[in-house]
Amino acid sequence: MTGVSRRRLFGMTGAGVAIAGTAAGTGYFAASRPDETAATVPFRGPHQAGITTPAQDRMHFVAFDVTTTDRAELAALLRDWTQAAERMTAGLEAIENGAVGGRTEAPPGDTGEALDLPASALTLTIGFGPSLFDGRFGLGDRRPAALLDLPHFPADNLDPARSSGDLCVQACANDPQVAVHAVRNLARIGFGKVAVRWSQLGFGRTSTTSRAQSTPRNLFGFKDGTNNLKAEDTAELDRHVWVQPGDGPEWMSGGTYLVARRIRMHIETWDRTSLAEQEAIVGRAKGSGAPNGAAEEFDPVDLQARSPDGEFRIAADAHIRLAAPATHGGVRMLRRGYNFTDGSDGLGRLDAGLFFVCFNRDPRTQFVPVQRMLSKKDAMMEYLEHTGSAIFACPPGVPPGGHWGDSLFG
Amino acid sequence: MTGVSRRRLFGMTGAGVAIAGTAAGTGYFAASRPDETAATVPFRGPHQAGITTPAQDRMHFVAFDVTTTDRAELAALLRDWTQAAERMTAGLEAIENGAVGGRTEAPPGDTGEALDLPASALTLTIGFGPSLFDGRFGLGDRRPAALLDLPHFPADNLDPARSSGDLCVQACANDPQVAVHAVRNLARIGFGKVAVRWSQLGFGRTSTTSRAQSTPRNLFGFKDGTNNLKAEDTAELDRHVWVQPGDGPEWMSGGTYLVARRIRMHIETWDRTSLAEQEAIVGRAKGSGAPNGAAEEFDPVDLQARSPDGEFRIAADAHIRLAAPATHGGVRMLRRGYNFTDGSDGLGRLDAGLFFVCFNRDPRTQFVPVQRMLSKKDAMMEYLEHTGSAIFACPPGVPPGGHWGDSLFG
Ligand code: HEM
Ligand code: HEM
Repeated sequence: MTGVSRRRLFGMTGAGVAIAGTAAGTGYFAASRPDETAATVPFRGPHQAGITTPAQDRMHFVAFDVTTTDRAELAALLRDWTQAAERMTAGLEAIENGAVGGRTEAPPGDTGEALDLPASALTLTIGFGPSLFDGRFGLGDRRPAALLDLPHFPADNLDPARSSGDLCVQACANDPQVAVHAVRNLARIGFGKVAVRWSQLGFGRTSTTSRAQSTPRNLFGFKDGTNNLKAEDTAELDRHVWVQPGDGPEWMSGGTYLVARRIRMHIETWDRTSLAEQEAIVGRAKGSGAPNGAAEEFDPVDLQARSPDGEFRIAADAHIRLAAPATHGGVRMLRRGYNFTDGSDGLGRLDAGLFFVCFNRDPRTQFVPVQRMLSKKDAMMEYLEHTGSAIFACPPGVPPGGHWGDSLFG
Repeated sequence: MTGVSRRRLFGMTGAGVAIAGTAAGTGYFAASRPDETAATVPFRGPHQAGITTPAQDRMHFVAFDVTTTDRAELAALLRDWTQAAERMTAGLEAIENGAVGGRTEAPPGDTGEALDLPASALTLTIGFGPSLFDGRFGLGDRRPAALLDLPHFPADNLDPARSSGDLCVQACANDPQVAVHAVRNLARIGFGKVAVRWSQLGFGRTSTTSRAQSTPRNLFGFKDGTNNLKAEDTAELDRHVWVQPGDGPEWMSGGTYLVARRIRMHIETWDRTSLAEQEAIVGRAKGSGAPNGAAEEFDPVDLQARSPDGEFRIAADAHIRLAAPATHGGVRMLRRGYNFTDGSDGLGRLDAGLFFVCFNRDPRTQFVPVQRMLSKKDAMMEYLEHTGSAIFACPPGVPPGGHWGDSLFG
């Protein structure tokens, strides 16, 4: 047996955004993108990675039910997970010599399908759902008020099998196999203590979270992420994303609240809508992404501008008007969603849409009021169906020596 | 409205494997892989693309039911599809100025989500299912005997909603958004004439179809594709993949038969199996991919080799023994499968596996006997569940001026 291992092939520590060696692939069709795929994102820091990290190309998001009722066992799992997560984000196996370097009579400690692949900018971000604080683990008094049970929104059509969860892990990477490998190995390590509740694969990012990125398109064909918060706006991030001291329980300082919505897009109906109508619904030009009435993608959104006939350039029920900070007293959020296609729906149509993910300092004043207005008034809602919903408290980043459960379990 | 279009951004014809301009992305996280993603695979030729084309990274496979009963309408659709397919594989919109360049009062002729993306080595491969020859279209006497109704194999657990189909299109590309875009636009063009029966996204190739490619890994963590037929083996391809004159109906000469099997892998059970057991089941080392008893991945498979204690090095029920050409009178096939993960199964486990695709000159002597033996004896079957199945006749390549329906409709 040959001792190939991620450690040996890509031996490096996760410090800084390191550029690792190229993958084993050769030829122009090979899976390697030496410059990008191999990048390593640091696991530790004041905030968790995977939030303001420039959005990677692919995502595998998983929600777990905790099946053990033993608090110590849960805390120990979070410790084990942290170790594995840090290793995998550095491009290593889940445990040292995990895949093929151990005793052959034992099940491998790593499942092996990422053996030849570099770190691929993998980030793993953990979150705690409201149900984790229900008393099973003595955490009832630690639940932040901001971690609310999301209200029912008009037109919600939620599938419980795609909603909620005690824990979540958001795995993002430039190679989907690396993201899938990470989730699978965490599930394996958690066997007997947690069970996969639901999981979602996202194949294309729909957001930019850094000015270094170009704006991708969602499945309505529009640029998505133009007016997003960006990693470079550190003051804005402190205002809108990161929980500040005094906001709520101290264990969440430096953390953030993740809201995930699986939004089915009725693309067949959308595709039969005229271009003018589509642009009126979004409030932007489909080609350039410019706000209606403006010329360039990054031109400011002027909600007061009117055409000569007195009509609003950006319609009263346009998505970007109803979601705009100006409509909500300056409120913003960090969007970090992905396009999905989950086969077909049995009625001759693709089951496709947007797995919407956003990060909030306090969803009670950010996601909730914005979604309430969109659900009621957004012209786009005619083409949307929210089929999954979840909220999680993402604790702050892991300091050296610390682990994912530290701030919560104290 | 800005006249951005795939034509303007990537204006080029599909002749030869052209390397187009880089995508709009900048920064090391951007989605562009200038050298690879932008490649264009020629659409026309003696054989369809997407078969011996070096396997691209991602796949979107779709099966359609034909809903029209009008033969001329079906033939016209195949003509329209051909035009759109050729354009999209060249990195263009489905129709000229389709996304944003047309009349704004009309629905766009292209859905737009691939506007800024290069061709990404997209290939589109069409196939005709047995049910297309049932008499609705007067094609009953054109059905090839090799396009059999697949028999029931032991342990099959097929879901009709993931099986069969009148038509299929296999879309492969290095960017999943490009593959999804292509399938969606073909579905849109076919509205009212065809309906999506099922579709499958594959996130990671599990096969090499060219010696220029490194061997990827499947979700059991093993290298997959080592002993595959390769594009370079032209004589072998004529023997095992391409239908030869005299084989059956003349319209299939230069074509091939595609068998697709959605194989759920019980990865949680597999992950609790020892490394030694896993390697005995496959017949190869997990790290290097070398046949058991040999040293290197590409060492020949010696089915007679025995260890000093007299046991076969490659076990009697090992996958590679039971699938080996030597076990089936020299029969081979071209495998071109993809890993998939479709969320979870409601029982706490990921719904993951291998979307197995293979191409045969005659499945009656290739896929069928091999699968029959695997279903009965393969030790790996304990960890597998075949949940979907389909067979399609892929006609020969499209000559200049011709279209996808030419050979069949005459
Ligand atoms: C499938 C569902 C959705 C689609 C297709 C969609 C699409 C878009 C598009 C194309 C833009 C303009 C480009 C940009 O600035 O990013 C945009 C902006 C925005 N969207 Fe959505 N969106 C969806 C759901 C949501 C949801 C659920 C929320 C929050 C509850 C939301 C909040 C926002 C915000 C805050 C902006 C920026 C507005 C501005 O500041 O100009 N969107 N969306
Ligand atoms: C999830 C299901 C399957 C898995 C995980 C799997 C895995 C593998 C692996 C790891 C190899 C060795 C590397 C190689 O030569 O490619 C292999 C070889 C092979 N497999 Fe499979 N396989 C699966 C299903 C199938 C099916 C359904 C067939 C055909 C009916 C098949 C036919 C073959 C053949 C012909 C070989 C090459 C044998 C040789 O010439 O050495 N496999 N497979």
